[in-house]
Amino acid sequence: MSFTLTPENLDDLAEGAAVLGTGGGGDPYIGRLLVERQLRAGRDVRIVDLGTLRDDALVVAVAMMGAPTVFIEKLPSPEGSVAALRALERHLGRAVDAIMPLEAGGLNSMMPLVAAAAADLPVVDADGMGRAFPEIQMVTFNVAGVPGSPMGIASDHGDSAVIEAADNDRMEWLARGLTIRMGGAAYTASYPMSAATVRETAVPGTLGLALRIGTALRTAREHHRDPFDALTAALRGTFYSHGRVLFRGKVVDVDRTTVGGFARGQVTLAAGGESGDPGDPGDRIVITFQNEHLVAVREGGHERDGQVAAIVPDLICTLNTETGRPVTTEALAYGQRLTVYAISTPAIMRSPEALACFGPSAFGLDRPYTPLEELTPATP
Amino acid sequence: MSFTLTPENLDDLAEGAAVLGTGGGGDPYIGRLLVERQLRAGRDVRIVDLGTLRDDALVVAVAMMGAPTVFIEKLPSPEGSVAALRALERHLGRAVDAIMPLEAGGLNSMMPLVAAAAADLPVVDADGMGRAFPEIQMVTFNVAGVPGSPMGIASDHGDSAVIEAADNDRMEWLARGLTIRMGGAAYTASYPMSAATVRETAVPGTLGLALRIGTALRTAREHHRDPFDALTAALRGTFYSHGRVLFRGKVVDVDRTTVGGFARGQVTLAAGGESGDPGDPGDRIVITFQNEHLVAVREGGHERDGQVAAIVPDLICTLNTETGRPVTTEALAYGQRLTVYAISTPAIMRSPEALACFGPSAFGLDRPYTPLEELTPATP
Repeated sequence: MSFTLTPENLDDLAEGAAVLGTGGGGDPYIGRLLVERQLRAGRDVRIVDLGTLRDDALVVAVAMMGAPTVFIEKLPSPEGSVAALRALERHLGRAVDAIMPLEAGGLNSMMPLVAAAAADLPVVDADGMGRAFPEIQMVTFNVAGVPGSPMGIASDHGDSAVIEAADNDRMEWLARGLTIRMGGAAYTASYPMSAATVRETAVPGTLGLALRIGTALRTAREHHRDPFDALTAALRGTFYSHGRVLFRGKVVDVDRTTVGGFARGQVTLAAGGESGDPGDPGDRIVITFQNEHLVAVREGGHERDGQVAAIVPDLICTLNTETGRPVTTEALAYGQRLTVYAISTPAIMRSPEALACFGPSAFGLDRPYTPLEELTPATP
Repeated sequence: MSFTLTPENLDDLAEGAAVLGTGGGGDPYIGRLLVERQLRAGRDVRIVDLGTLRDDALVVAVAMMGAPTVFIEKLPSPEGSVAALRALERHLGRAVDAIMPLEAGGLNSMMPLVAAAAADLPVVDADGMGRAFPEIQMVTFNVAGVPGSPMGIASDHGDSAVIEAADNDRMEWLARGLTIRMGGAAYTASYPMSAATVRETAVPGTLGLALRIGTALRTAREHHRDPFDALTAALRGTFYSHGRVLFRGKVVDVDRTTVGGFARGQVTLAAGGESGDPGDPGDRIVITFQNEHLVAVREGGHERDGQVAAIVPDLICTLNTETGRPVTTEALAYGQRLTVYAISTPAIMRSPEALACFGPSAFGLDRPYTPLEELTPATP
């Protein structure tokens, strides 16, 4: 969908993007703050439907690279994203016509808006992940064979580089190495392609979807309705059809390290036996993450012990049980009362080629992909 | 000086370059082999005096980056250097007119010849280090304020990148990060500048000097004369006036690790009390290296215990005692009979600015720079 961002719908968009961030994608608050500054400075953020672009318009995916744990300590700048974009433009010898989010989650759905406002370019309502993923080759563009190179990358210290990698896996590997040396966070502009190619390869409408999710959660809070019911209703009729409450409980353990440029770890929730908790006391769920949540496994004394409740690329979201507000992996803390909510991914993200790129095996997980709606049927 | 390389003078040039490599710069045998292949393929290697170039000719410094320990396991390719050069040319939108060695030591005095033959360009008889140094900002160009960026860098896997760093220290830092991810060895093309600027900032004539040193050592061997006397005689009348035998003995300890993309360690030699050894039995010398030898310190029971015999940027060379052939840090082994020979550096490498860039403190050494000729006076 096409729309112009206002301070009002920015809050909803940021919250919905944090849900699609599936625990990762960086702190949405920071990204929202940066977009807000652009709006206050009188700049426009124009989000345009893919259908409105000329076939040969040059579109570039903009994102931050690095561990979300670093972004908390170091506020990203609009200048960094624009520097990455300009480095790529100099290399291509051509101006970019539109910016596109690389991923539809958290900070990385906000940074393209910041860059677009700063560079006076429109943002395309589409992305390459349909959620957040930790690595830059984990995109539908790559699944379709679109090269991510040449890729512009810039630091907060006045450095930039253009990488031409042999393939998209090596692009991730090289850019990640530079990102670590750039201080653990870098600005990237990659996958330069025509709008025609974006139309064939992107997950469409994900900014619109984020706005819809955020609006549903806010409205539920305003009207004292259950936010999870509202979320499930909002997903109905989109490409992300199925929403499921997997678990409700308290965080009893968080194991998190920043290693190799990623935030990696596990979070364990235990059911408290409180009203509304769908589980017996003693039931647990363990979620493994690499920036984003990857797999949720049930633990406990009953027949579902060891059962996978949801697995990547389906979305596993940790949301505040009272408010439905998303909690990212770097903000997880002992004692938080959370609801684990899962969302099914569109068909374009479930093909064998897509699963090879960002399914369980791409993360070294020893479990097959099974669609959420089979793992966890809807409660009637 | 200007000359065209032949198979005959290649051997001398490679050996002299290995002496200037001061223990580092990579295995000279490998570089010589690669140049030989170019000559056998009928390509010319034309070395030209700085004076012959037009003021506005574009000159680029070519070098391998990485730990010499890696080059032994992975033979460098002409294609890699040309790929780095082409990446830089695309960025500059201009063809390079001449290649220059970044450093005058070991493998890195040979790779520019390989690249120049493969790209059909002349090589300028000058360099930025006047020896070998482990880091890319340790050049007289940097001392004079010439930016090393934009810098082309390429791997053996079909990847390339162009780095535009905020300064030359950051260029080293970022390129080293990429080099590690490129497999521990990478091809670089940096410090693009006009021939006029090269004339003002480079150490001139270092390829000619290497040829002179190599010829002196070979001739001494052929005529059964002392190679170290020949070396000292060859240096007389050049910018590298003073040569000194510091120590003669056997390797009794080598401590070497490859860490952070460098070969770091220490080698200890003990005097054997044999005929011709200038020292009592029990005398030792300990040389600390980071790719190249940095400081030689005397140990033993007499009054010179703890005394610095020579220190960076003066050259400390480990040469086979019988033949005068240089032994690089990665080839050092227990039991080798070596002569530690030091060479004074030209004035351009001893200014306060130069010492700040590649003197003892630049390597974290806690000792002041003292010229070789003061530390170790000539024996009459």
